[in-house]
Amino acid sequence: MKSNQISIKEIAKLCDVSVATVSRVINNNGRFSEETRKKVLDVIEKYQYSTNTVAKTLRMNKSKTIGIIVPDISNEFFSTIVHEIESYFFDRGFSTFICNTDKSKEKEMAYITSLDSKMVDGLICISGQEEIEASLLSRDIPIVTIDRRPRMTNNLAMIESDHFNGGYLATKHLIDRGCKSIIVLTKKSNLSSVNDRVEGFKKALAEHSYPFTSHSIVETADDRKHNIEKARNAIHEELKNGRTFDGVFATNDWLALGVVRELLDSNLKVPEDVKVVGFDDDTIANYSEIPLTTIRQDVHKIAEVTSELFYNLLTEENAVINKKHIKIPVELIVRKTT
Amino acid sequence: MKSNQISIKEIAKLCDVSVATVSRVINNNGRFSEETRKKVLDVIEKYQYSTNTVAKTLRMNKSKTIGIIVPDISNEFFSTIVHEIESYFFDRGFSTFICNTDKSKEKEMAYITSLDSKMVDGLICISGQEEIEASLLSRDIPIVTIDRRPRMTNNLAMIESDHFNGGYLATKHLIDRGCKSIIVLTKKSNLSSVNDRVEGFKKALAEHSYPFTSHSIVETADDRKHNIEKARNAIHEELKNGRTFDGVFATNDWLALGVVRELLDSNLKVPEDVKVVGFDDDTIANYSEIPLTTIRQDVHKIAEVTSELFYNLLTEENAVINKKHIKIPVELIVRKTT
Repeated sequence: MKSNQISIKEIAKLCDVSVATVSRVINNNGRFSEETRKKVLDVIEKYQYSTNTVAKTLRMNKSKTIGIIVPDISNEFFSTIVHEIESYFFDRGFSTFICNTDKSKEKEMAYITSLDSKMVDGLICISGQEEIEASLLSRDIPIVTIDRRPRMTNNLAMIESDHFNGGYLATKHLIDRGCKSIIVLTKKSNLSSVNDRVEGFKKALAEHSYPFTSHSIVETADDRKHNIEKARNAIHEELKNGRTFDGVFATNDWLALGVVRELLDSNLKVPEDVKVVGFDDDTIANYSEIPLTTIRQDVHKIAEVTSELFYNLLTEENAVINKKHIKIPVELIVRKTT
Repeated sequence: MKSNQISIKEIAKLCDVSVATVSRVINNNGRFSEETRKKVLDVIEKYQYSTNTVAKTLRMNKSKTIGIIVPDISNEFFSTIVHEIESYFFDRGFSTFICNTDKSKEKEMAYITSLDSKMVDGLICISGQEEIEASLLSRDIPIVTIDRRPRMTNNLAMIESDHFNGGYLATKHLIDRGCKSIIVLTKKSNLSSVNDRVEGFKKALAEHSYPFTSHSIVETADDRKHNIEKARNAIHEELKNGRTFDGVFATNDWLALGVVRELLDSNLKVPEDVKVVGFDDDTIANYSEIPLTTIRQDVHKIAEVTSELFYNLLTEENAVINKKHIKIPVELIVRKTT
């Protein structure tokens, strides 16, 4: 380290303020006047304190920053959760760095390494991959996950919607509305959140003695198309192959919208001929051409529970959690497609 | 700095690989075997190299990370752009840290400080505030902005849609479709992107000798409600006050959807009684109850131009840009609301 660099004490002395005040200005955390801020920043600029800021982080071993790894920020469910977690932590003096992995394992690994080298105090990982490469971390920091059950044992908690019950409620609703032949439309996936929804679907069928056959599950093609297009293509194929059904549970709202649009274009009436239920209750569900019956995930509750749990892990000495697993209830929202 | 810390050279020696390989592993950038990765990470863990990683960043003065400051990641226009920029830079070995400011000046300042202290190589700032507090930066790094014209002179380029022409095209289309009394619905804002759209509206009216009065602009309430609710409330007020109009240009698609819903609930027909044009061409525009005529912003082009320009600034020696200002063309998309 260069010998001509200035310490936080010297900055305080030059500005005629306390060390604590300089610290607050540097971390932009807590109260100080605009005049003080200007004074401190001027001195810092003059003496090029920036490298020392990083050194300070290292000494304190707390950077007051957290990382969020998210598979797709353009997905409303994810972006809303991230938004709310960010607000919670900003109010408590933390900066949040959001990293978008595009569901790529390679990106996720790179971002874990990258956030670690930036000395974040902890990580929130949302869905995306089955496992978390925690071995990439050079430090023992807390990790909380949403919608994924990675095979790790320590320092980890997970929060998710009750996906199983969601699939069950959606399917039972179709049965209650008189559907005789029900399919589930889903994307091919190893994610527990998706698989649990399909398991809930199976349970509802079994409970009502409906047959479950190889035609009961329709998987969309594994292409780069938008969910709407994936769903349209899949339903188009089913109809072309002469399959008949009067109820569809689609495992997300955009898939459900594609189903509705394709049915209408095939001169089938929704909900008279075929009833459709989605999942998530994105804003679009309420404003689509036929407002969508769907399973609402409680995004606010998920964000709140995640934030509180994670904050405790970050701030309490010796907080240890072993595979704590929290399920948030879901709710059936009935609109016009059933 | 502690004297017992290990250098990158020593790690290379202990692993029996080159310094370049160790560097690639640390930065997770370029090719190396899984075996090499494990070996290097083991040594790093053993000797606690992490603090030195940061020190190295300081020495090299390049961290291969960039920061993106975005006002609202749950906005589709922003999240799509951020997504594409992230991909562009990941392919070139950069990590992207996304910071969500919730349109708060305080948050934006905190995140600029925070990203700076993490030694990002440059910043992309999207909309949000009029000015950028570049004085918070301790280093002279490039900044590129989207949809904002901050009062800075150096090291800055800005990219935006041709908002003025968008407002003009939307309004001219309403005139061409026979509307006699046209209003613009907008949020109160100091943002140039919004103001330009309104100026385009005014120009189209003037060109066709339509009167522009104090009732021509309707501003939504400055509350925390969703855009749909803001628009509904504003249109409800207008109708209650006996205002008549047969054309509405709403300055974003969600406002336009709120207008359509409120008109329908007031027993007015769209497009027969009132025609509506939105702005953005979000996915919802094509899947809403009445597919929306709108102005399409070319998000892909905006992301591409921004990425290429920013990449040049980051990687070329002595690249200097003085207030370079790039406008991306927009397009009228005619659907069912006009």
